Amino acid sequence: MELAMIGLGRMGANMARRLQLGGHRVQGFDPGEAARAEATGHGITAHASLDALLQVMPAPRVVWLMIPSAVVDGMLDQLLLRLAPGDTVVDGGNSWYRDTQARGERLAGQGIRYVDCGTSGGIWGLSEGYSLMVGGDEAVVTPLHPLFSTLAPAPDRGWAHVGPLGAGHYCKMIHNGIEYGMMQAYAEGFALLERKQEFNLDLAQIGEVWRHGSVVRSWLLDIGTEALKHNPTLQGIAPYVPDSGEGRWTVREAIDLDVSTPVLTLSLLERLRSREANSFADRLLAEMRNGFGGHAVHRTDVP
Amino acid sequence: MELAMIGLGRMGANMARRLQLGGHRVQGFDPGEAARAEATGHGITAHASLDALLQVMPAPRVVWLMIPSAVVDGMLDQLLLRLAPGDTVVDGGNSWYRDTQARGERLAGQGIRYVDCGTSGGIWGLSEGYSLMVGGDEAVVTPLHPLFSTLAPAPDRGWAHVGPLGAGHYCKMIHNGIEYGMMQAYAEGFALLERKQEFNLDLAQIGEVWRHGSVVRSWLLDIGTEALKHNPTLQGIAPYVPDSGEGRWTVREAIDLDVSTPVLTLSLLERLRSREANSFADRLLAEMRNGFGGHAVHRTDVP
Repeated sequence: MELAMIGLGRMGANMARRLQLGGHRVQGFDPGEAARAEATGHGITAHASLDALLQVMPAPRVVWLMIPSAVVDGMLDQLLLRLAPGDTVVDGGNSWYRDTQARGERLAGQGIRYVDCGTSGGIWGLSEGYSLMVGGDEAVVTPLHPLFSTLAPAPDRGWAHVGPLGAGHYCKMIHNGIEYGMMQAYAEGFALLERKQEFNLDLAQIGEVWRHGSVVRSWLLDIGTEALKHNPTLQGIAPYVPDSGEGRWTVREAIDLDVSTPVLTLSLLERLRSREANSFADRLLAEMRNGFGGHAVHRTDVP
Repeated sequence: MELAMIGLGRMGANMARRLQLGGHRVQGFDPGEAARAEATGHGITAHASLDALLQVMPAPRVVWLMIPSAVVDGMLDQLLLRLAPGDTVVDGGNSWYRDTQARGERLAGQGIRYVDCGTSGGIWGLSEGYSLMVGGDEAVVTPLHPLFSTLAPAPDRGWAHVGPLGAGHYCKMIHNGIEYGMMQAYAEGFALLERKQEFNLDLAQIGEVWRHGSVVRSWLLDIGTEALKHNPTLQGIAPYVPDSGEGRWTVREAIDLDVSTPVLTLSLLERLRSREANSFADRLLAEMRNGFGGHAVHRTDVP
């Protein structure tokens, strides 16, 4: 198929390459010169303007967005000025599924079709294939099957049309919520191994043992073990964990649905905690202990 | 090697079979007639008494325990009456590592060698191999390498001598603590998929997609997806989750070491919570809401 890839960052560029290797014809757009140069180096024609890209696409056009959720609406504004009825836009990024549903209605008003595709696989997707959760109307999704088949690890594995528009991003949101919990579980476990000085454990060795035959073997363990092999003491890595939204949306959804998800919630909160350099709550706790029991407080230079 | 396997339950019998398939000569003991019959059916000579088993073992004997942690001390009492200096006992079960260390000292007093081997793999270990974390003195562990090489997924993968006596069970305890956290993360995520009636999601389909190429792919996901394929609504399964000790020990260790492990801890507490049929805390909360705000309480037939 012919495809316009909007956003040639790590994800977009690698997906474009995998599609091209699979026989599709992909051209891209990215406002960044470095991203365009890198994509060009990998054989992807990279345009510096939307107009240039869309002009060379045969109708009906298929446009795949691989951009941060915060800039999707702005991009859709641009696309709505340029697309025609019958064209299809796929949001392959991590959008909040309610936004996706609203965008679908907006585009439908101009006869433009909208599909959400939750995409997992990270930087390994190029070689191993991506896990894809697709949402949208059957009639809109079906013509795109060749793209999903190529992006997935195998034509019949790792992708599915999971439901109506929004369902793909919903599943990807939950996927990322689970990811937070799994990562937190490994992180806490390895912290207990590291602190057990009595045994002087080799964390990478233990991770490597667990990778083969154990109940906790997983791709995330592969990644974590590799990190510990190269940097056993995590030297130079600050204890600061960003988040990019899906964990928050998962917690919001849990509350909306009255479903108790303490571990997914706490895994998000632990990331927030990791970014509190000077916790007001901890300082107040110390002061309260001092107030009722005269317990000493640690003084700090932070004003 | 020649090995005496004590305990021919699911784990012990399968490990005996894998060892025998790998060229070792294994005979076993189990007090249960059914377990003995099953083992015999798989070509493992199963004795009905310890004496009968130990008599046929050439000195120095290697005895592998695959029994619940609660009965290890009783079994060691029996073995101490029958073993001789130079014999080796391996505890392949899930003992609390401090117990393991104390047992090692006790056996050393009679010249008997002790090794701990944390064993993961469950009922799939027979075909796929076990993940083994071995603790003990180098001189005691080294002669046993052929056993670990056979039990592991491959001779050079999935097993390691991780440290002194106790370190094997310590690592297995942490492994299980992580397992609790991972399982809870998946469980909460699938609960959010199940409750999202708006999308009418096929949970097994989504689990299957995630198994290929996604960041959350793992062996536990394989297991969970398989369960959802066979029983999508989990019909007939009560929401009651037992635990067998390792999660508790992990939390105890976290407190002893002053390491914050909220997700591992909460994953244990969620299991306790699943077993509270008539939570006193919830009833008191309902009463307090009634007390300060006149909010209605749900009445129950439970006295």
